[in-house]
Amino acid sequence: MKKISLLGATGSIGWQTFDILCSHPDEFKLVAFSAGKNIEKTRSIINRLNPELVSVQDEVDARTLQKEFPQIHFTYGSKGLVEVATHPESQVLVNAVLGSVGLESTLAAIRMGKTIAIANKETLVTAGHLVMAEAKKYNVPILPVDSEHSAIFQSMNGENPKQVERIILTASGGSFRDKTREELKNVTVKDALNHPNWSMGAKITIDSATMMNKGLEVIEAHVLFDLPFEKIDVLLHRESIIHSLVEYHDTSVIAQLGTPDMRVPIQYALSYPDRLPLVGGKRLNLAEIGQLHFREVDFDRYRALKLAYDAGRAGGTILTAMNAANEAAVALFLQEKITFLQIDEMIEQIMNDHHNILQPDLETILHVDRETRKTVESMVK
Amino acid sequence: MKKISLLGATGSIGWQTFDILCSHPDEFKLVAFSAGKNIEKTRSIINRLNPELVSVQDEVDARTLQKEFPQIHFTYGSKGLVEVATHPESQVLVNAVLGSVGLESTLAAIRMGKTIAIANKETLVTAGHLVMAEAKKYNVPILPVDSEHSAIFQSMNGENPKQVERIILTASGGSFRDKTREELKNVTVKDALNHPNWSMGAKITIDSATMMNKGLEVIEAHVLFDLPFEKIDVLLHRESIIHSLVEYHDTSVIAQLGTPDMRVPIQYALSYPDRLPLVGGKRLNLAEIGQLHFREVDFDRYRALKLAYDAGRAGGTILTAMNAANEAAVALFLQEKITFLQIDEMIEQIMNDHHNILQPDLETILHVDRETRKTVESMVK
Repeated sequence: MKKISLLGATGSIGWQTFDILCSHPDEFKLVAFSAGKNIEKTRSIINRLNPELVSVQDEVDARTLQKEFPQIHFTYGSKGLVEVATHPESQVLVNAVLGSVGLESTLAAIRMGKTIAIANKETLVTAGHLVMAEAKKYNVPILPVDSEHSAIFQSMNGENPKQVERIILTASGGSFRDKTREELKNVTVKDALNHPNWSMGAKITIDSATMMNKGLEVIEAHVLFDLPFEKIDVLLHRESIIHSLVEYHDTSVIAQLGTPDMRVPIQYALSYPDRLPLVGGKRLNLAEIGQLHFREVDFDRYRALKLAYDAGRAGGTILTAMNAANEAAVALFLQEKITFLQIDEMIEQIMNDHHNILQPDLETILHVDRETRKTVESMVK
Repeated sequence: MKKISLLGATGSIGWQTFDILCSHPDEFKLVAFSAGKNIEKTRSIINRLNPELVSVQDEVDARTLQKEFPQIHFTYGSKGLVEVATHPESQVLVNAVLGSVGLESTLAAIRMGKTIAIANKETLVTAGHLVMAEAKKYNVPILPVDSEHSAIFQSMNGENPKQVERIILTASGGSFRDKTREELKNVTVKDALNHPNWSMGAKITIDSATMMNKGLEVIEAHVLFDLPFEKIDVLLHRESIIHSLVEYHDTSVIAQLGTPDMRVPIQYALSYPDRLPLVGGKRLNLAEIGQLHFREVDFDRYRALKLAYDAGRAGGTILTAMNAANEAAVALFLQEKITFLQIDEMIEQIMNDHHNILQPDLETILHVDRETRKTVESMVK
């Protein structure tokens, strides 16, 4: 029985993690989780899995819930995230919060020797050097939850990482993949949220349309698999059936495939190195699918991906600036305060103006993160 | 430095094995090999790799060569195969002979504790139970050389075989894949030998057109991976880029891909568990290929595949009868003594008339093999 703590339980990945935990009650026990403001979902998880510790975003919600569930300990805010992440009984921390709020709690969990299943790519993008250094120091596995990184991780199972020639991240191309850059000028929030293959949260769906999501994944792959950027490629594959591939130096390529279902990589991170049956999973039927398509990525069309490679190669605080600029710009787009193409433009401007600091400490990262968001917000006033 | 003995050095697989051995002189040393009647190729291998022992088919050739190369020991015939296979210095036997002649020498090598890299599928098809029992007894790894089985083997690297839901062997469909069964009536030997993707010997190219080749592979997979036939599927995939796939019980599918090049699986069997750079290998470029196609197999169209599943499920000497009938019928087709569709028909008739013996010993297998060939030949008189 693995004991699990979960950050971001009511988000898209968190909720699917909850589903996995429910389907294997003999394998997993949820000891602690954090939620945001969705108190209904929080109640559902408590009722179903009866954890010991729950953290919510606001103090008032923590007080309300404490009265309803006197047997459970409630906490809140950013200290609550750290409490959940470091719960003494948990063995595996699933970090499924969005954005850079997951960073401090992840580092705290690593220092407690907990295995990290990481769906929070911003943590690895902005502070990959800190996370991996701590993981190495405390001998803690960092297991990917993203479908692409899980695919790479699965495709490297039993292999010698030194014999990897390159990894190939597949990209669906997002909701606007059939549009030219010119045609992106007037797209709406509603258009952007209509992803062809994956059911995901709003922020990641927009990131998928700009391909900043793939850019973040490229950087994440660089951090997780310790590979230089020239060994990390992106391939357009509209069906999202091949989740990613690893090419070895004998030209052999190993890939992981499946029906798009985030529960597969989530469960794999939880059950690793074993595999468990996926309850209600849909088996892949290639004959039914008939054809798989592949195309090179156009970096002019997907400018955010180019920016991410640039930031990745540079390293340092420009990664934080790029990520914060993206988060802030996407928020503005979702509020209909800027156009879709302004997302890339704002990120580019922030990167051009950035004074890069290499090997930043946590404080510097958090400072750059805050300042960048302010700058982006000031750009629309 | 791994010391290698090679059966069938001048055939298609053997010759490519020779190429691999030449490209990694610091990794591999050829200590012994067997050849058939191609004395020119035999001389080339001797000149290049200077082995200690060489066996050829005919005594007269052995005598001629002995005079030319006095420092090398020459032998011949079926006792020569066993001598090569059991050479005291060799650690790995590559069995690349065609047909059932490789069986006795393979068993002899297993009993000497040598690792077996097996390209000779007839050995596993007709005597899989004997080979695997001996391999288990002497704790000898049996490594696949066939591209499909190598793909499955690679896709199971680091995985728990108990968590395999099914394996999927891909099939190009062979040289007549775009023809209906009706259209196969008048095809010629020349048509049949024109395989779309792979450069192979004549017998296997015909087997590919009838899909008996895939049938033999299904049986071979059953033997090598200890899986029931209901967990072994065949999928038409015309590009031969995905070489095979393994589905796990979490619905995750791992696959091995690459440009069709037999040297990849040959080298992998030699270098396993490591991978070596493939000298002159062509890297996979999926964007250039653009599309991969998949289709269900029609067992009425590919009757030989159906027969192979039937024989596999039955087990026993019917496997030998089926294989021998196929070898004899293909030879008759190549001699233009029967039509293409008569290949299946002869195999089916032999199977219908066969009195099956389960768990046959080596003597019984060889007896059934001889008798079946005689019967098939008598059918055209």
